[in-house]
Amino acid sequence: MNWYESDALNVKKDVMDAAVAHQLTLTKPPGALGALEEVAIKLAGMQGVVNPQLTRINISIFASDHGIAKQGVSAFPQAVTTEMVKNFATGGAAISVLARQLKAQFEVVNLGTIFAVDKHPQIIDARIAAGTQDFSSASAMDDGQLQLALQQGRDAAQRAQENKSQLFIGGEMGIGNTSSASALAAAQLKLPVATLVGMGTGISEAQLPLKIKLIEKALTLHASNDPVEQLTSLGGFEIAGLVGAYIRCAQLGVPVLVDGFISSVAALMAVAMNASIAPWLMFSHESSEPGHQLVLAALNAKPLLNIGMRLGEGSGAAIVVSLMQSAVALHNEMATFSQAGVSEKEV
Amino acid sequence: MNWYESDALNVKKDVMDAAVAHQLTLTKPPGALGALEEVAIKLAGMQGVVNPQLTRINISIFASDHGIAKQGVSAFPQAVTTEMVKNFATGGAAISVLARQLKAQFEVVNLGTIFAVDKHPQIIDARIAAGTQDFSSASAMDDGQLQLALQQGRDAAQRAQENKSQLFIGGEMGIGNTSSASALAAAQLKLPVATLVGMGTGISEAQLPLKIKLIEKALTLHASNDPVEQLTSLGGFEIAGLVGAYIRCAQLGVPVLVDGFISSVAALMAVAMNASIAPWLMFSHESSEPGHQLVLAALNAKPLLNIGMRLGEGSGAAIVVSLMQSAVALHNEMATFSQAGVSEKEV
Repeated sequence: MNWYESDALNVKKDVMDAAVAHQLTLTKPPGALGALEEVAIKLAGMQGVVNPQLTRINISIFASDHGIAKQGVSAFPQAVTTEMVKNFATGGAAISVLARQLKAQFEVVNLGTIFAVDKHPQIIDARIAAGTQDFSSASAMDDGQLQLALQQGRDAAQRAQENKSQLFIGGEMGIGNTSSASALAAAQLKLPVATLVGMGTGISEAQLPLKIKLIEKALTLHASNDPVEQLTSLGGFEIAGLVGAYIRCAQLGVPVLVDGFISSVAALMAVAMNASIAPWLMFSHESSEPGHQLVLAALNAKPLLNIGMRLGEGSGAAIVVSLMQSAVALHNEMATFSQAGVSEKEV
Repeated sequence: MNWYESDALNVKKDVMDAAVAHQLTLTKPPGALGALEEVAIKLAGMQGVVNPQLTRINISIFASDHGIAKQGVSAFPQAVTTEMVKNFATGGAAISVLARQLKAQFEVVNLGTIFAVDKHPQIIDARIAAGTQDFSSASAMDDGQLQLALQQGRDAAQRAQENKSQLFIGGEMGIGNTSSASALAAAQLKLPVATLVGMGTGISEAQLPLKIKLIEKALTLHASNDPVEQLTSLGGFEIAGLVGAYIRCAQLGVPVLVDGFISSVAALMAVAMNASIAPWLMFSHESSEPGHQLVLAALNAKPLLNIGMRLGEGSGAAIVVSLMQSAVALHNEMATFSQAGVSEKEV
């Protein structure tokens, strides 16, 4: 059995029940805090304590290039993946700013940029190859490469657990990776490619039909119902890294907050490979990438935020952490009706 | 001319243009941060600097009782307004927890609870009367009382400006105040009462027709197209307090973040009384109270969050501040393409 097939830990249902009961004692109408109540209750179940905490956050960004990018399916040149790895590490990217704001443990795992990157304390150099193969004509990676990418995700989850992390956020960077993610979602959900493909970082209307055609060609070439085979033939190293991280977090009991479209596709593949991990995944936001809604629906996920973000990097998830911290503060710090001497509902 | 008819300050369009231009230089696809970009740009225009700040927050909670509550239109006993005023001040209410989290300047303005409240440094005792009159059979307040309530809001805005506040949040507490707010919205928007009335803090299905009938009766009794007359006959002291605060903030140049249904109705009345204030109002969340969507649409408001909150107290607005702080941090701290040596979009 592969490591990623082992069961996830159980979320503690009895603690969740106790957290639900605690919510009903707080000085507010029942349910008046909406989804914030569910956030606190879920975290209680995952952390195994009625009063959860949310101060220790781990953010791992997985970066890699994609062979398909050579076909002109992206609005930015492929060098941007490498350039952004440096930008993450030196603190100028959106996720770098947000990680500082959250005082998160932050790292970049380079799984395969086309260019080498100078050593930096926040970059883990784990390049498997100079990008994947072009999946429209070949398998994106081979079996050994997939295992290496999954293993890097597993290691990131392990580091989060060693950091006693209360939340893991995986981010991604890879010019061309909405094409890979759309292909994976289409293969996994058996949905028409056109419903899953969007503008990515901002391609032109003219590029869209090419993107769809290349993905359709790839789906015929690599037809398979097996999520591991799909990930091998259509995936990106960074997407496989996320898959490995999500599965291992659930096995170790580290709650996961999933970011946008690419990350949600990684969550979809991870759940397809190991259904037991599903209760450990929380969803942060709905991006403006059209396929995201379909992937979220397949995962039965109801994210907290929908403000038209479409950046990736884990940025949407990082934005949502402060909402979750408010949810936890309210759950832990509000007075009960009896403590405050407030009369309860009478009808 | 009444003080509340004076024009608001101008938002600085040239600074907003400069903020838009700055956003386009940051290392992300244009627009990829969605509504967060607009938040930073709006704050820049209001604060008059390309790089706005959001650390100094003022939260004023206006509390008062409603004569209509005697008719059984609420799920909680009327004593709860008084009890919650104490709970706000002693730190146990939701908004108290959130105000601490934001390190906000926090105060409770008691405009008319039915019971007196012991002195407390965070409570301003400004009781106009022991609640309003029952608007289903009399005018909720008289002209002098309305002016007093507006003045208390004006004073709160003034204190925010003296505190060099970068954001003002008004909250409200008053058992029965969804009835008052629904009546005001129906009068102002000429919409059927049934479309604007909801479950408030959680009334029974059986109570809903009574709530609608009483409001319809009041609208016939107090028919008027004038927002000041509507506020006098149907309003609550705390709603008028919010109206005064919103108008004065706009006159003084303090950005406002509006909370949920009751607060949005106060914003609606404030804009009806003085249209020049509209650019100073930002909207935080869409509550699960059904009338809120209609009021937001009338104000052309697109709030950031929709997570089923329906607590009032300014709590939804306070939750959204951290999102806005992230928006500001991204705007101010992200690297530009040239700083980071990242290639720009090529198509």
